[in-house]
Amino acid sequence: MKIVVDAMGGDYSPSEIVKGCVLSLKNHKDLTIVLVGQEVLINKELENTIFPKERLIIENANDIITCHEAPVEAVRTKNDSSIVKGLDYLKNNEDAQAFVSAGSTGAVLTGAFLKLGRMQGIKRPALAPLFPTAKGGKVMFIDCGANMDTNETNLVQFALMGHAYMKSVQKIESPRIALLSVGAEDEKGNELVKKAFPLLKEQKINFVGNVEARDVLSGDYDVIVCDGFAGNVLTKSIEGAVSFTMKVVKENILKTTWRKISALFLKKAFKDVKETFKLDSIGGAPFLGVNKLVLKAHGNSKSKNIESAINEVVEFIKGDLIESIRKTLTCE
Amino acid sequence: MKIVVDAMGGDYSPSEIVKGCVLSLKNHKDLTIVLVGQEVLINKELENTIFPKERLIIENANDIITCHEAPVEAVRTKNDSSIVKGLDYLKNNEDAQAFVSAGSTGAVLTGAFLKLGRMQGIKRPALAPLFPTAKGGKVMFIDCGANMDTNETNLVQFALMGHAYMKSVQKIESPRIALLSVGAEDEKGNELVKKAFPLLKEQKINFVGNVEARDVLSGDYDVIVCDGFAGNVLTKSIEGAVSFTMKVVKENILKTTWRKISALFLKKAFKDVKETFKLDSIGGAPFLGVNKLVLKAHGNSKSKNIESAINEVVEFIKGDLIESIRKTLTCE
Repeated sequence: MKIVVDAMGGDYSPSEIVKGCVLSLKNHKDLTIVLVGQEVLINKELENTIFPKERLIIENANDIITCHEAPVEAVRTKNDSSIVKGLDYLKNNEDAQAFVSAGSTGAVLTGAFLKLGRMQGIKRPALAPLFPTAKGGKVMFIDCGANMDTNETNLVQFALMGHAYMKSVQKIESPRIALLSVGAEDEKGNELVKKAFPLLKEQKINFVGNVEARDVLSGDYDVIVCDGFAGNVLTKSIEGAVSFTMKVVKENILKTTWRKISALFLKKAFKDVKETFKLDSIGGAPFLGVNKLVLKAHGNSKSKNIESAINEVVEFIKGDLIESIRKTLTCE
Repeated sequence: MKIVVDAMGGDYSPSEIVKGCVLSLKNHKDLTIVLVGQEVLINKELENTIFPKERLIIENANDIITCHEAPVEAVRTKNDSSIVKGLDYLKNNEDAQAFVSAGSTGAVLTGAFLKLGRMQGIKRPALAPLFPTAKGGKVMFIDCGANMDTNETNLVQFALMGHAYMKSVQKIESPRIALLSVGAEDEKGNELVKKAFPLLKEQKINFVGNVEARDVLSGDYDVIVCDGFAGNVLTKSIEGAVSFTMKVVKENILKTTWRKISALFLKKAFKDVKETFKLDSIGGAPFLGVNKLVLKAHGNSKSKNIESAINEVVEFIKGDLIESIRKTLTCE
């Protein structure tokens, strides 16, 4: 299999991206990576590194799209940027199956939308990150910001795409799909939720009803369906609250020398906490509903995260995610 | 000053509510509490308790509105319920200044809306809880679920009410008001946010622009303005994520005997963590925009929380919150 990786995206590019790719090439013997970015910089990173040269193709791209640029404008004008060139490569090479980037979310989504096009029948592609749950599994939030103003039909399609993802990639037989609302009761919600609810009940999916934001990480749900604005608030407030809580815990534990000493004995415990959150092992968010696979890795991705992101993409390819979404949409 | 308290609301009523009131009467020598609920039960709780009898008035109400009842229906039909009778007392007695309830949020808001009426000029009253911040202060989220579908004018009024609250009650000279969005940049957001942004800039308030959900607890903002659906997602996901994080930390710390022993020395540290979150000292959420003061205490309120809720209400009265909101709205 062949995937395309944006070498220039994210806070630690190209160094950590290149390292992540080298790790992935070791993990997956049947993987070829097309690394798109400034060739000179990439080659410098690869100096003194042992890697399978025949499975790492460098595609030069001189330009970079930053997070501060207006996405549509940037994608339209910066033809020599790593994001645009990467997506062009994916589009024009049948054997290339996916694109991974830790760069500007707006530019990656806009670029994927414009270059790859929507899947037949899909009105709005959606960004769908995964979060750890209290019971150890993963939960998908779809959409988390690709679309700002959506209608009930869009929400139904998000549900179907989430269903297909959980079934084909996570191998969950009957994914539990819930609709984000202000209470678990059927009648709760805003106009959009109230319109989507009966439509979701009609689908051939395991729709389990409304869910409150408080319960999304409980492990009782596999997919949380929401509009992009609410989904963005949901994911970012969880991220903010988790790091705020950990900061408060850390500050209090390191407040006195005595506490610091006691905390030393708990170092492994805190490492386990980090492991539970699995921030390293959740590599990024798939952008579902476009014609090829696209994964948006975190902007602050280090090599480990890029490795995880590529692992995820490999699972998408193995699960034939695109075909699975297509089948779910057409009820095949 | 005289306030009305719903003795029958919340998971631990009437016992913890009555205890909280007795604590409050000790704290505030000029306070009279009208305790509304089943007289027999209230009197039983007061047995063997020393309290200033002349400052505790019991108003009998035989009925209870539960959280599972449809609010509008319940408020309209259950005239002998503690919520309806309490709000009636507040409405009909000029010297009564506020109502506190840990009961059904829907019933309290609906009842307050129907019985007390909206303040002149206010289109939609709003529920506005306070959260602790990373810098030690408090931040208000307004609205958090009183209104499901709002327009830009509503958001502007939420901002003005939040401004008035922070100025009169929290004594912040120039409260920093931010608009919840999907990014901090001016142009980010859904249609509602994009319409509200320029209107907020025109107000005589310290509008500091958009804020991402990730940053709402940073301490850089005093008021976060949002529609009720997004606000509900915001508050509940923060609550859920904080408790999820603490659960994970606790589980990992208690995993082995050795860790348990080390953790013993950190008991005080974890107490301090709890103190930072100040869950006990934030009593409840004011319902702003109706003609008298209403505070919705948490459903799981214990006596300490009720005491805090009443402390908050005393601050509202001292800060002349209603008059302050009125002045802000009329730009006096």
